[in-house]
Amino acid sequence: MSLPRKGRFITVEGTEGVGKSTNMNFIRELLDTANIPHIVSREPGGTPLAEEIRNVLVVPREEKMCELSELLLVFAARAQHINQLIRPALERGEWVLCDRFTDATFAYQGAGRGLSTAVISSLQDMVQGELRPDCTVLLDAPVDVGMARAGARGELDRFEQEKHTFFEKVRAGYLERVAAEPERFRLIDASAELASVQREIAAALQPQITAYQAGSHV
Amino acid sequence: MSLPRKGRFITVEGTEGVGKSTNMNFIRELLDTANIPHIVSREPGGTPLAEEIRNVLVVPREEKMCELSELLLVFAARAQHINQLIRPALERGEWVLCDRFTDATFAYQGAGRGLSTAVISSLQDMVQGELRPDCTVLLDAPVDVGMARAGARGELDRFEQEKHTFFEKVRAGYLERVAAEPERFRLIDASAELASVQREIAAALQPQITAYQAGSHV
Ligand SMILES: Nc1ncnc2c1ncn2[C@@H]1O[C@H](COP(=O)(O)OP(=O)(O)OP(=O)(O)O)[C@@H](O)[C@H]1O
Ligand SMILES: Nc1ncnc2c1ncn2[C@@H]1O[C@H](COP(=O)(O)OP(=O)(O)OP(=O)(O)O)[C@@H](O)[C@H]1O
Ligand SMILES: [Mg+2]
Ligand SMILES: [Mg+2]
Repeated sequence: MSLPRKGRFITVEGTEGVGKSTNMNFIRELLDTANIPHIVSREPGGTPLAEEIRNVLVVPREEKMCELSELLLVFAARAQHINQLIRPALERGEWVLCDRFTDATFAYQGAGRGLSTAVISSLQDMVQGELRPDCTVLLDAPVDVGMARAGARGELDRFEQEKHTFFEKVRAGYLERVAAEPERFRLIDASAELASVQREIAAALQPQITAYQAGSHV
Repeated sequence: MSLPRKGRFITVEGTEGVGKSTNMNFIRELLDTANIPHIVSREPGGTPLAEEIRNVLVVPREEKMCELSELLLVFAARAQHINQLIRPALERGEWVLCDRFTDATFAYQGAGRGLSTAVISSLQDMVQGELRPDCTVLLDAPVDVGMARAGARGELDRFEQEKHTFFEKVRAGYLERVAAEPERFRLIDASAELASVQREIAAALQPQITAYQAGSHV
């Protein structure tokens, strides 16, 4: 008996309203068409307990949450998500498609809140071991473009209540991640019209899909 | 103007039902009598947000919480507690009397759950910096003594549902902490009758009280 093919771990990142959910659905259709078994998830969250922790993170309250507490909650949810959902799926040979992951932590808690990269990296190692996304689609657009698309939402959550300058820092934080790991990222101009964004995404993911279908055991 | 005296940070530790709450009240009276300004708190918890995190930790649910997620939640609550409550009080010169702190993490998540001391220590440094209790009262008694005292409680929380062998490991974990830092700990035989336990506690804390009243700026 040969080992099952290992699944691929694909994450989608970007600031508010750039089109992550829209394009998660598009990628899911690509995988369906290619007959690739997969699960779809999001962070923070992805299991009932991790969603409880997400709720603590996003709900606005009077007490200011300190930066380090926010960071540790993010990784507490991630530890649970990885153990319960992500690793088992990858080991079954399924792909995992996730709306945000640790790049968002470097962007939001690191670049946005000002926590050090060293502290975030040490938690990344503690919680993830060797696990990293195989491929990360970064939807990049000016902050105002995403804001305009997200439009008038109902009650804003604790992150959505942040100011423009916070999201500028987050966007810059994402772009630093791309500069540091250009092989892993697929940088997509998300200010373009949707059809063009999706053509780019499909082209960017095709090599991974082809390799998996060829039965690579990597 | 001279610097205000720095407060002392006193923690009370021990397994379930050994008498922590009872003796927290007794120590509080000692401090009142000595005219020492102080606050009383507990972990996990101590602020509204940290109590929300406590709730995530203790509530029983179907999904098994992984060890690392539990550890990170404990430290997320602690980061908030330290920043919002403990450090400000100590800096105002008040004493902080806390029902459980990081020794409980080494005992429950370390010795009890099997997480490594190195991982817990690195989070301790990340979250606490140099902050450590000045003095820790460990109420030690056989597990069954505490269990019998705690008696029939209503719904058991996620920790109280653990088995006898888990609490034996926790008790042993606490005793290892004492062996490693004998100066900081006041090891009290909590199986003795309450009057005797409280005489021991009063004697153990008297040097700290006297030093503070003498106006030490340590
Ligand atoms: N390239 C595009 N051009 C125009 N509109 C788009 C484009 N991509 C997405 N949209 C629209 O922008 C809005 C926000 O998209 P979506 O919800 O996918 O963003 P998101 O990144 O998931 O947002 P959030 O950060 O709130 O999760 C939707 O109404 C979507 O239809
Ligand atoms: N030395 C003692 N001898 C006899 N009974 C005691 C003694 N100390 C405490 N008790 C009783 O034991 C019970 C449990 O005490 P307490 O609630 O203070 O324990 P605890 O350590 O705070 O428990 P928990 O772990 O549930 O918080 C109470 O009814 C208390 O009155
Ligand atoms: Mg979305
Ligand atoms: Mg108690």
